[in-house]
Amino acid sequence: MTREFAETLHAGYAQIFAVSRVLADEQSAFQHIQLFENPAFGRVLALDGIVQITEHDEHTYSEMMVHPPVYEHGDVERVMIAGGGDGAVAEEVLKHPSVRVVDLVDIDRRVVELAREFLGAVHGKAFEDSRLRVHFDDASCFLDRHQGTYDLIIADRPDPVGAAETLFAESFYQRVAAALRGAGIAVFQSGVPFFQEDELRDVCRKMRSVWGEVSTYLAVTPTYTGGLMAITRGSSRPVTQPILDAALERGRRDLLRTQTYTPDVHRAAYALPAWIRAITDAP
Amino acid sequence: MTREFAETLHAGYAQIFAVSRVLADEQSAFQHIQLFENPAFGRVLALDGIVQITEHDEHTYSEMMVHPPVYEHGDVERVMIAGGGDGAVAEEVLKHPSVRVVDLVDIDRRVVELAREFLGAVHGKAFEDSRLRVHFDDASCFLDRHQGTYDLIIADRPDPVGAAETLFAESFYQRVAAALRGAGIAVFQSGVPFFQEDELRDVCRKMRSVWGEVSTYLAVTPTYTGGLMAITRGSSRPVTQPILDAALERGRRDLLRTQTYTPDVHRAAYALPAWIRAITDAP
Repeated sequence: MTREFAETLHAGYAQIFAVSRVLADEQSAFQHIQLFENPAFGRVLALDGIVQITEHDEHTYSEMMVHPPVYEHGDVERVMIAGGGDGAVAEEVLKHPSVRVVDLVDIDRRVVELAREFLGAVHGKAFEDSRLRVHFDDASCFLDRHQGTYDLIIADRPDPVGAAETLFAESFYQRVAAALRGAGIAVFQSGVPFFQEDELRDVCRKMRSVWGEVSTYLAVTPTYTGGLMAITRGSSRPVTQPILDAALERGRRDLLRTQTYTPDVHRAAYALPAWIRAITDAP
Repeated sequence: MTREFAETLHAGYAQIFAVSRVLADEQSAFQHIQLFENPAFGRVLALDGIVQITEHDEHTYSEMMVHPPVYEHGDVERVMIAGGGDGAVAEEVLKHPSVRVVDLVDIDRRVVELAREFLGAVHGKAFEDSRLRVHFDDASCFLDRHQGTYDLIIADRPDPVGAAETLFAESFYQRVAAALRGAGIAVFQSGVPFFQEDELRDVCRKMRSVWGEVSTYLAVTPTYTGGLMAITRGSSRPVTQPILDAALERGRRDLLRTQTYTPDVHRAAYALPAWIRAITDAP
């Protein structure tokens, strides 16, 4: 490797990406943005030294953040995405014809600008879809102005370091719950349990204090190193077997064009290994 | 990080482990053996520069190589492990009281000696179990001398580089099939599809030419970087829904002490993401 990008998020471990071409390397008002090309992952976006998304594995993340809650709800019209300036999650949401409005709220205008310039393979035609509205704002403030509004809120949040720490506070979950309407669902990126066990335990505890019952399901994204990634789901209507069965039936009828998601993968995502169940269910 | 171990198995990507203590670093008759301690993974065993097993994540691999086929078979008495000198897979096999004999066949005596000295947390009391017989031999030659012998053969093989290439040849699958008896099952470590798509396609093709129908299921082991890992299963009795249901029922009754395996995880492991299904089912 001639040029390298090193991610040192976890103690005692690092992942190194060969950099075949630098597309952007700049300090925005909020963070250090790096965009580069790698032989294995294609284009890679990193914020403050942490990989956020890559061309070749983004489907493993964005499809699993979107399609399970959309099918479980059954009639999602209004969606908010907190973060997600790269547009990958928005693209998946917009695949559903029931969706009428998507509010994408990212604090950093430069992330969206650079994604639009360089990450077309990640967001497809999402930014040209008239249903998508992009807001450069603090997600918490935005939520406070949109109470009782959304059927689905997706917290496409980074790791709980620096400015993103507020997106892991109990008050954030309360704001999200208040911005849902009816049987609305919220899903939260909740870290890689192998390395971030405390994070997942903390997320589940705080979310239970807001929603009572919460569920965790799993995705596997190569660049979120450490294996399984947790997604935690809160709703006034918890996942039950009939809700899940109805969701899988919608998925089977829909025949969405996906690379990762299938109804079987959806059901399987709720099967937690014993060691992860011990974390999510800790009192 | 002061001292480091770098694994550069995949093009354009590397994983780096901090080394807090070196336990062994030597050239055996067959390979370069390294054993060290890392803050995140505990003790780590690497062969020819590739991580084979670590204390903290071995259960994600060894439990999934063992318990699904044992429960699917229903009455496993005789088991052969090809490779597996660290003893992790043997420990899981020996948890099943129906098992009467386990032949562990590893070509490298030094791997077993060093594992016995340093990796007690990985193999437990496996090497003290009178049902385990350790053979220092070439797995292919051993198979030829044991036709029609085993209910379960586990190919705990490394990546297809160097000496291990013979463990990925079609003749190896033929030898394994001939060493099974009755409705015996063989499972093969088949690589990380994200990085080793060609390997998995090749494994499935060769195995189909021997068994007709084969199945792939998935495990997620953090140090086998790249997310999902494929395990391919061959048997004269392919997995059907009734076979799987009976297996899960055995798992539910058994209440085995496990960290990863549960009957739900077992069932979920057969749910292949669309992109992996496209690889396994390629003609």
